[in-house]
Amino acid sequence: MIDKSPETPFLVVDLDAIALNYLTLRRLMPQARIYYAMKANPAPEVLSLLAGLGANFDTASIFEIHQCIAAGIAPERISYGSTLKKEKDIASAYQLGIRLFAFDSLGELEKIAAHAPGAKVYCRILMNNEGAEWPLSRKFGCDVDMAYDLLLHSRKLGLEPWGVSFHVGSQQTDPTQWDKAICTTAKLFSALKQAGIKLQMVNLGGGFPGKYRAETAKIETYINTITNAMHRYFGDDIPEMMLEPGRSLVADAGIIQCEIVLISQKSYTDNKRWVFLDAGIYNGLSETLGECIKYRIRTPHDGTEIAPIILAGPTCDSADILYERANYQLPVNLKVGDKIEILSAGAYSNATSSVGFNGFPPLKAYYI
Amino acid sequence: MIDKSPETPFLVVDLDAIALNYLTLRRLMPQARIYYAMKANPAPEVLSLLAGLGANFDTASIFEIHQCIAAGIAPERISYGSTLKKEKDIASAYQLGIRLFAFDSLGELEKIAAHAPGAKVYCRILMNNEGAEWPLSRKFGCDVDMAYDLLLHSRKLGLEPWGVSFHVGSQQTDPTQWDKAICTTAKLFSALKQAGIKLQMVNLGGGFPGKYRAETAKIETYINTITNAMHRYFGDDIPEMMLEPGRSLVADAGIIQCEIVLISQKSYTDNKRWVFLDAGIYNGLSETLGECIKYRIRTPHDGTEIAPIILAGPTCDSADILYERANYQLPVNLKVGDKIEILSAGAYSNATSSVGFNGFPPLKAYYI
Repeated sequence: MIDKSPETPFLVVDLDAIALNYLTLRRLMPQARIYYAMKANPAPEVLSLLAGLGANFDTASIFEIHQCIAAGIAPERISYGSTLKKEKDIASAYQLGIRLFAFDSLGELEKIAAHAPGAKVYCRILMNNEGAEWPLSRKFGCDVDMAYDLLLHSRKLGLEPWGVSFHVGSQQTDPTQWDKAICTTAKLFSALKQAGIKLQMVNLGGGFPGKYRAETAKIETYINTITNAMHRYFGDDIPEMMLEPGRSLVADAGIIQCEIVLISQKSYTDNKRWVFLDAGIYNGLSETLGECIKYRIRTPHDGTEIAPIILAGPTCDSADILYERANYQLPVNLKVGDKIEILSAGAYSNATSSVGFNGFPPLKAYYI
Repeated sequence: MIDKSPETPFLVVDLDAIALNYLTLRRLMPQARIYYAMKANPAPEVLSLLAGLGANFDTASIFEIHQCIAAGIAPERISYGSTLKKEKDIASAYQLGIRLFAFDSLGELEKIAAHAPGAKVYCRILMNNEGAEWPLSRKFGCDVDMAYDLLLHSRKLGLEPWGVSFHVGSQQTDPTQWDKAICTTAKLFSALKQAGIKLQMVNLGGGFPGKYRAETAKIETYINTITNAMHRYFGDDIPEMMLEPGRSLVADAGIIQCEIVLISQKSYTDNKRWVFLDAGIYNGLSETLGECIKYRIRTPHDGTEIAPIILAGPTCDSADILYERANYQLPVNLKVGDKIEILSAGAYSNATSSVGFNGFPPLKAYYI
């Protein structure tokens, strides 16, 4: 517990809320194995909470794997979900007991075969990320044709072709995107079955939303869409399912407390106030880059008259503008020193802080 | 010295090169006071080198001021150059002996008056940043009309109206931008003189370039343009000049050593290779955001046949794509494990690293 409010900015994360989110997801989809995408918030407090509740872990690097192992998480509960791994990191992971690896290219498959012999591998297929507020389309995955060949090839390399993964994009606002992806995946399963390979697992990725400014469907709607699609496209032969929630478990559990440093105008004809906070893209709010994630903001004057603003962070860097085109409005009688709350800020916030750009320390975080 | 090359990625900074850049600038413009914009690279090694050579320091936060004081730099050599300061930080700086403060708004001026009575203040005016590869235009500065009123007002508040600052944008490729800014500044000096205020100082900002992919004019060209403009617009009554170089002192002194983690294609019809490095926007290459800064890249196969690539970093985040539209080409026979050098990477690189997003540690740096 925090006795006295520390100096802003800081993040407060409610661990009970994370537990509830995890247990809700498990209840809604008991047949899926949940792998927490720990990059969203890798705090030891979050890891040990979720480990205690039985979660598995999706890791993005050997460093995250080391963190999991250090937290006492057994290697069979860890997936090495990055499709970009150094050979020595694959070897280290294998030595630590990790047996589940993602890939999306021939080069990666060959590295895994060389350094993790016999491991289970799953191929990430490329999805277009329509409807996602933080799209992931271009960088990860390969075409289905190529995935087919690579999964066939994986067996020749002595690996166990285990499944297929996709990711419909982070903060995906359109649940039907899973339907499309599952349809594609089922066809790939079927084609490989005809070629003598029986895949065992569909990794449905992450993408479930946090509560930002725009309304999104409820988690139940997402799960229903997914469950229905699995039945529709896989019939009675439903494979093991992996889910990789990150944002949806931790985002809504966190609030960034910050403060107004300055309110100003650039000219006498300026019709928008500039509001400067002590938190910005380099110390907790990197997801506002490109104005992608539109946080809900609470002020001490909510309910009073509002007017348009431009919101910016504290550094001497012009990239540190949070919202300029997203039509944010805040109360007219905001003043310097007012405490501001950035809601649903538990994901990709302190984890992406800079080491201290402009001298500002990384966003502090308190887990209660 | 580094005996054995450490594991990539890492930054190596040649301190002699920084010293040479500083001494060159001082030789070319002996009449100006040089304030190193330490946000570009705040390493203690860089601070003590430049402090020893007689530099002054432009700081962006109270934290940077503390760093300077801890390095033994006298407060009269420090400018608090941020236009966004908390009241308590102004008070702390004043208590530490800082007497030179930037502002660009009434709100900031009133805070300075309250917590740094009698201090010298300079007003930042808004410039359009045409020609800058990392523009700074929108966030800082106010219109000249407003600057006039605020500088007048500063005296009523018990402050010493000291000067005017502007910034033509970081990595400014067009030296004539200073001519325009100095012209505007001289008119403002003259208008204030008629109102009974004799300003003493022009802060010419930073913006001198590093050597990236596009050719830029030599530093001599920039200095000549500035010197000529000062004479043209101020005549015989040239005020004190401040320069705030950051990038131009440290960028070319640094090289990021990294490694190719994967080379892949997304489909059989893909005509571009994806090349993935172990350094990306979260661990050293944040200035590639929006493909603004286009680094020169050295490979072990330079001089052999090249072909288009997309270059990306190591995290499971799609924002971590370095160059996709900037038409980079690299040798056809690049392979996984090849060592790659990112040249002129001494500025805004390790300083902007994340604390460990996706588990990847902040970019290590070696100062030799």
